[in-house]
Amino acid sequence: MICFTYTRRLERWGLFEAACPGFSDKNPFTDYAVQGIFRHKNETVKAEGFYDGEGLYKVRFMPSFTGEYSFEVRGSFSEETYTGAFTVDPAVGDNHGPVRVANTYHFAYEDGKPYYPVGTTCYVWELQSDELQKKTLETLAQNAFNKIRFCIFPKHFDYNLGEPRSYPYVGTPMDGSILTRENSFSYMGAGEEAGNNWDFKRFNVEYFQHIDKSIAALRDLGIEADLIVMHPYDRWGFSRMDAECDDLYWNYIVARFAAYRNVWWSLANEYDLMPQKKISDWERYAGILCEKDPYNHLRSIHNCRSFYDYSRPWVTHCCIQRQDIYKSTELTAEYRQRWGKPVVLDEIAYEGNIQHGWGNISGRELVRRFWEAACRGGYAGHGETFEHPQDILWWSHGGELHGESPERLKFLYRILSETPGPGLTPMEGRWDGTTAGVDELFDLSGYYLYYYSFMRPSFRDFYYDDKRDYKVEVIDTWEMTIEDRGVHRGRFKVELPGKEYMAVRIQRIKRQEKN
Amino acid sequence: MICFTYTRRLERWGLFEAACPGFSDKNPFTDYAVQGIFRHKNETVKAEGFYDGEGLYKVRFMPSFTGEYSFEVRGSFSEETYTGAFTVDPAVGDNHGPVRVANTYHFAYEDGKPYYPVGTTCYVWELQSDELQKKTLETLAQNAFNKIRFCIFPKHFDYNLGEPRSYPYVGTPMDGSILTRENSFSYMGAGEEAGNNWDFKRFNVEYFQHIDKSIAALRDLGIEADLIVMHPYDRWGFSRMDAECDDLYWNYIVARFAAYRNVWWSLANEYDLMPQKKISDWERYAGILCEKDPYNHLRSIHNCRSFYDYSRPWVTHCCIQRQDIYKSTELTAEYRQRWGKPVVLDEIAYEGNIQHGWGNISGRELVRRFWEAACRGGYAGHGETFEHPQDILWWSHGGELHGESPERLKFLYRILSETPGPGLTPMEGRWDGTTAGVDELFDLSGYYLYYYSFMRPSFRDFYYDDKRDYKVEVIDTWEMTIEDRGVHRGRFKVELPGKEYMAVRIQRIKRQEKN
Repeated sequence: MICFTYTRRLERWGLFEAACPGFSDKNPFTDYAVQGIFRHKNETVKAEGFYDGEGLYKVRFMPSFTGEYSFEVRGSFSEETYTGAFTVDPAVGDNHGPVRVANTYHFAYEDGKPYYPVGTTCYVWELQSDELQKKTLETLAQNAFNKIRFCIFPKHFDYNLGEPRSYPYVGTPMDGSILTRENSFSYMGAGEEAGNNWDFKRFNVEYFQHIDKSIAALRDLGIEADLIVMHPYDRWGFSRMDAECDDLYWNYIVARFAAYRNVWWSLANEYDLMPQKKISDWERYAGILCEKDPYNHLRSIHNCRSFYDYSRPWVTHCCIQRQDIYKSTELTAEYRQRWGKPVVLDEIAYEGNIQHGWGNISGRELVRRFWEAACRGGYAGHGETFEHPQDILWWSHGGELHGESPERLKFLYRILSETPGPGLTPMEGRWDGTTAGVDELFDLSGYYLYYYSFMRPSFRDFYYDDKRDYKVEVIDTWEMTIEDRGVHRGRFKVELPGKEYMAVRIQRIKRQEKN
Repeated sequence: MICFTYTRRLERWGLFEAACPGFSDKNPFTDYAVQGIFRHKNETVKAEGFYDGEGLYKVRFMPSFTGEYSFEVRGSFSEETYTGAFTVDPAVGDNHGPVRVANTYHFAYEDGKPYYPVGTTCYVWELQSDELQKKTLETLAQNAFNKIRFCIFPKHFDYNLGEPRSYPYVGTPMDGSILTRENSFSYMGAGEEAGNNWDFKRFNVEYFQHIDKSIAALRDLGIEADLIVMHPYDRWGFSRMDAECDDLYWNYIVARFAAYRNVWWSLANEYDLMPQKKISDWERYAGILCEKDPYNHLRSIHNCRSFYDYSRPWVTHCCIQRQDIYKSTELTAEYRQRWGKPVVLDEIAYEGNIQHGWGNISGRELVRRFWEAACRGGYAGHGETFEHPQDILWWSHGGELHGESPERLKFLYRILSETPGPGLTPMEGRWDGTTAGVDELFDLSGYYLYYYSFMRPSFRDFYYDDKRDYKVEVIDTWEMTIEDRGVHRGRFKVELPGKEYMAVRIQRIKRQEKN
């Protein structure tokens, strides 16, 4: 006998779940519906549920308020209506709620705390062995990354020829033992004809239960799960389902994952490498998200060569792969202006040494790109692709980090976290240095961050006004040092070491308030 | 009593000079004309002469053929017609004649020897002390630079506040002792109102005689003198003369310098920073060059922000300052396509550590930019701007070199010199590496140079055909090593060290000719 169970007490933005017994004849994924209605004095929220196997239909919910909620769960899945109530306590610890767009170009948690994304990419870290996943989480715990991009579907690509830990659908995969590095690309986008045999109308719930756990583990580390819902690196046919099955999938993952506060939706990785999907398809998926995600988690879509139209209203922020080998985050300010949304350059080449140009830049170059983004009021993304004897590359599999950039990204995160006010804004300045500041509109103006990139000035001159005092610090972004250079007024000169990757931070000293 | 003297024997492309006494009343620079006519069985050349002080009018000539020449010098400067004859011997040693455009995008000396420009910039090296000039020439002798850009007029700019060794005109300069780094920019473009007092119709011949010697010294080192005829960095008014005086100057320098085989004409440095000159002025100067330079030395003009229209017929090659901080020589192939002429990116930021972003990149970055140019079938330019206790910066003053790039540019010059056939052509290839080859149209095809820039592949795969053999070398462009990797056929993999700045050179092995 399976019992109706539900969460009775949780914190604000926590995960409520009700598990309700229902019919398990026919196809529970397609033939029955389940919905929850959640009521609080401040909100009433409808949330679709999903079938999770063993006769259980589940409805999940993320409360936005503290206090008492009541709920009912009903639908064709059962003749019964399940009802109950639960109590929401204030958030504690690192729980600040879901991340939202703040001040047009930036992000903040729902409780108002600024969120400065320092993201990384591990495309299928959650489909690796328990041991490797454990190692990934340990590595994440030791680093500054507060967002991780990963795929819901398994990945077929160079360095990704193995089988995932399980499959999202009931059925059997093609014979992976025939794959070699040389022939693997010819199976890209394969389906039934290659020996795959799936029922795209029956999800393998264990597969998704495991992703649940992975999202929760990230949440508990304070890391946003930037879920890549579709992608082209596929030999099983998951990228070539028909519209009905696609929509079933989209509805399923929204019902399943939306109540995790740390979820972001990335409609696709390299959507433009999926010619089988038209713009009208992407817009339809976005429509499902907008309609069915009760929490309006952040939504975007990631390009290979052609940018998606980020001006579409459903797009909350730009999720960009650079289009040029030489200029990536240097274009952040142009992108801000073009789309008027936060700019996240998630893919700007990875630190590593593999044969592909997107995966073999130095840590110095990657960190430089991060600073270029930051000092233009945007955000960059990390990834790592070093050759490995067992082909375990952080970029896809997670595991350990071997590069020089992560320590420096921790340092950058510290600098970003010290930004006053609503986030950095690119500033007009000399052409030969990237300058960010905090907009004068805000009370906390008088903050300037100058970044010299690969340029190596041995000094720079500064002048703001003759009347106020400015605190000056010289930052070595690579050596991760901050040197106090005292307080200056009027025209002043800052000596620099004539090295690459230096920055100068200047902050106006607040006058004492008069009584 | 001043005598008529002339050179009786010289080598092909050497400098013939006849010095003819004439009137020295009135203004010999404007009131008298002098012209030479040079006759050989293969050519008859008219060359304007110039007044060189002490009652002497000079006519210079560069013979293009060996054998007997006769000449006459006549004009209003004298009632006499001076005649004579001289013998031209074959060129010897490093004399290969003037440099010409060859194969649309490249250069060759007139005797057919390919010329691969590896240029540097020392704007006013020839206006420094004898001691410093001597040092500059010693430095040049030890390096690979085979072209040097420098100005005919003295330079007023940051690090260039001192007086030149003398002045191009008769008169007196403004008081330079009032200059400070802070006020110097306010004197840019100054003239009479700042206390300058020049007769723009009377040249100071000693000034130009010294430039003669400087050009000849470069010639004797096998270095092309890329003469910058006008520039905006001026506090004396030389950049603001009227059209009549400008034309007098242009005619004078053409008459004076054109017979040096190593002269190139750069109409201006940063022409677009001289708003007092219109496009019609530049075109008029070019017209003087085209009409009066009997040897058709190479002609171009150098920009600051806006490119000149290099498609103008008088422009022999593009002389480009990069327009972007991040992309410079990476755009070489686009420029080739746009203008269909040789692309020389003479100013792509200098190795150094001064405060200006155009003068503080690393040697590594500068060398990288040179390779990017080379592997796209173009050429880059060097410069060096390190802070110096006496403000002696190679970029303006010459002297010694302190940077890391010159050694590597020697190495690049060696690689370029080993190019078979007519020069490198950018090739279609993988997007993540710059590839040059030699056009298949030529007999020496089957030559490929792959450059990986800041990317760090630990291997690359290659395939041309199944039937022929290819010699493979791995080049470390920074460490200046060439590693033989043997001969390969069909598909092959080249292991690389996963470091920046690597290149691979692959050459098809010629089959034995059958008898």
